[in-house]
Amino acid sequence: MFIAFEGIDACGKSTQIQLFAEYIKKRGFKYTTVREPGGTKLGEKIREILINEDMNSRSELLLFLASRAQLVEEVIKPALKRGEIVIADRFADSSVAYQGGARGLGVEIVQRLNDFATDNVYPNLIFFIDIPVEIAIQRLEKNQKDRIEKEGAKFFEIVRETYLKLAKNNKNFVIIDGNDDINEIHRRIVEHFELRTKSLNH
Amino acid sequence: MFIAFEGIDACGKSTQIQLFAEYIKKRGFKYTTVREPGGTKLGEKIREILINEDMNSRSELLLFLASRAQLVEEVIKPALKRGEIVIADRFADSSVAYQGGARGLGVEIVQRLNDFATDNVYPNLIFFIDIPVEIAIQRLEKNQKDRIEKEGAKFFEIVRETYLKLAKNNKNFVIIDGNDDINEIHRRIVEHFELRTKSLNH
Repeated sequence: MFIAFEGIDACGKSTQIQLFAEYIKKRGFKYTTVREPGGTKLGEKIREILINEDMNSRSELLLFLASRAQLVEEVIKPALKRGEIVIADRFADSSVAYQGGARGLGVEIVQRLNDFATDNVYPNLIFFIDIPVEIAIQRLEKNQKDRIEKEGAKFFEIVRETYLKLAKNNKNFVIIDGNDDINEIHRRIVEHFELRTKSLNH
Repeated sequence: MFIAFEGIDACGKSTQIQLFAEYIKKRGFKYTTVREPGGTKLGEKIREILINEDMNSRSELLLFLASRAQLVEEVIKPALKRGEIVIADRFADSSVAYQGGARGLGVEIVQRLNDFATDNVYPNLIFFIDIPVEIAIQRLEKNQKDRIEKEGAKFFEIVRETYLKLAKNNKNFVIIDGNDDINEIHRRIVEHFELRTKSLNH
């Protein structure tokens, strides 16, 4: 089982991934967590470049894809082969929402490029933690922001809208209201996970 | 005018580019030379990663493309706009021959990915400096080799064959026998250039 957590910056993904991983562990499942960009030696080098260098949108996308391709080969495929649950902090849909949607490269072309980079390995469960853009901006203002986080409200609006469109067209997407209490969000994620696990076993 | 020099490693491209650039200068043309991967701040960072890190073939290709996309936006498009001649040490066809051909990713998929990375900006004259693989290997043995140069004769045979196929299907390709004397090779490159320049002006 391959599970991705998606959402705009500061939506609370990291907290939820931590809680979810603890739950999975308690349930006795083996799991591997990965983050994007990064998660491999190559990916972490690419992550540094993405955070620090100025670049055009096509290069930005291609660097995310290069990191993703290595993550799939080096970590995700082997973990799935070992029968582990893979938990990803962002995956292919982040590129579709950020570069395809907000940077204007186009949803379909980014999806085709994702097919190449991921070798068609995709999550069978995607939690989209949805929060309003103004809340994300408020949360981000408290921290030092990286190159992508510095984008304005308009940018994140398009990211969010693109995610919502993707969720509509992909039965593996689950939209989770990120405005709720942390524990309530966790409870609902677990509920969906158990439901999906049950349906996979029958 | 956008001119690319292509060929297997150690074919003599760099020497010929230097001689050609000197000629272009003497002729009174303005020009810009670029090299791949690299040629921009972002590209040089990517070049370092490509030389030093182990990676799967899809990531390798995507990193070359990320470097190329930045080179096109930051250097090639502006230079062409200023009316300069752009002279490239490797461009899109290197990816087709090395990653599409020799790494087995497929010629057509790499060509489509190139269309995206280059924003469809392609050379209108490509000099393929052709040398037999055994001569390339002999020349490479004298130097410290990088990750790609360490590949064996079989790898370079496929690179060369892919170039030759590309040359057959693209009227902008000119095959130059790289076995000849350096000055003779230069003379023939200049001859083709002048012919092409004349035909562009009429």
